[in-house]
Amino acid sequence: MKTKELYSRRKFMTASGALGASLLMPQIGNGSQTTFPRLVNDSIHLFGKREGYGEQISILISMMDWMRFVILRDSKGLSQKEVDFLLDGNSNSIGALLMHLAATERYYQIDTFMGISKSKLGYGVEERVWQAASNLGDAGRKTFKGKPLSFYLDKLAEVREFSKTELKKRNDDWLMEYTNFFGNQPTNNYCKWFHVVEHESNHNGQIRFIKSRVV
Amino acid sequence: MKTKELYSRRKFMTASGALGASLLMPQIGNGSQTTFPRLVNDSIHLFGKREGYGEQISILISMMDWMRFVILRDSKGLSQKEVDFLLDGNSNSIGALLMHLAATERYYQIDTFMGISKSKLGYGVEERVWQAASNLGDAGRKTFKGKPLSFYLDKLAEVREFSKTELKKRNDDWLMEYTNFFGNQPTNNYCKWFHVVEHESNHNGQIRFIKSRVV
Repeated sequence: MKTKELYSRRKFMTASGALGASLLMPQIGNGSQTTFPRLVNDSIHLFGKREGYGEQISILISMMDWMRFVILRDSKGLSQKEVDFLLDGNSNSIGALLMHLAATERYYQIDTFMGISKSKLGYGVEERVWQAASNLGDAGRKTFKGKPLSFYLDKLAEVREFSKTELKKRNDDWLMEYTNFFGNQPTNNYCKWFHVVEHESNHNGQIRFIKSRVV
Repeated sequence: MKTKELYSRRKFMTASGALGASLLMPQIGNGSQTTFPRLVNDSIHLFGKREGYGEQISILISMMDWMRFVILRDSKGLSQKEVDFLLDGNSNSIGALLMHLAATERYYQIDTFMGISKSKLGYGVEERVWQAASNLGDAGRKTFKGKPLSFYLDKLAEVREFSKTELKKRNDDWLMEYTNFFGNQPTNNYCKWFHVVEHESNHNGQIRFIKSRVV
């Protein structure tokens, strides 16, 4: 990635990162850093209990909110050209990658929120579009072109809202429930949903790389 | 990224991902999927208690181990050419990005493991090399060239071993201790260390992108 891009990430990482003495009781965040919605009495950088969720699910929600805040920060104000730009013939557009994140979360909703039919998870998009978002490649390049940034951000928001509604209904034991999944090995819901979160970071690394090379 | 690359990630994501009934009690993982060291009675895909760590720190360790397993899987067997390849004049090599991950973890050790001097965190590398790994760019392109993959993997392992030794000494309350950090807002150790983990995924997205374009 471009050096300046790294500096901007580094600046975010180390802003006021001097090694001050740590305090045990968190104070209230002032929210001035972001318009990302969050609880009034809550700082997005203080992982912990979240209103309406179990103790442990609150930690997962802390991760989901923090990661999504980074994704929204990095995609904020992208031009149509940036949203559709293809670095090369095998590349995916930033728009397609954002849609891929929504499709992946939807996939994990279907997998982990047992008994939820795909029809309930349409989010106003046909199945072939979700398939293109899941598989990307040629189908993605054909399907995700000329759509405004808001289309992708709206899908991300709709899918996330459903995840949170379902997570509110579940207790912490649910995080330990598992199926054979990664490598056909027992994989619990905590691992699956952590993957949904780190998967956003993985593709955001690519989004940042592509964004820094739009010509 | 290349379609085939996505398929490989997707294959990993969805291997045996059929929606089987979930069970509450985890069984023992057989470890056949990876040589990554892990507890005998533990599956890397079952987030939960880890031997020698507090209940909540065990969840952080679960994330750290799982993410590192992915990094090691994706960098396994890279040739010298792949390790040093520069996609363009502003790009960083895969080797430099791996060293950047080690340097970032070292930075967070210094920040969160209070009272630990940098001299204790040398890991056999001069400070200017750690600086190059932190900042990347020109310094990184000059410094990280011709070094074998093992150099980077050894540094990642050394830094991680120290993190785990220190995390074993801490209780779960430590995760909630905070300093003003991201955006000069209160940021607790849980958030900081989650960032160390997702930061690996962010750059691994770039590593996979670069790897798929080595000519």
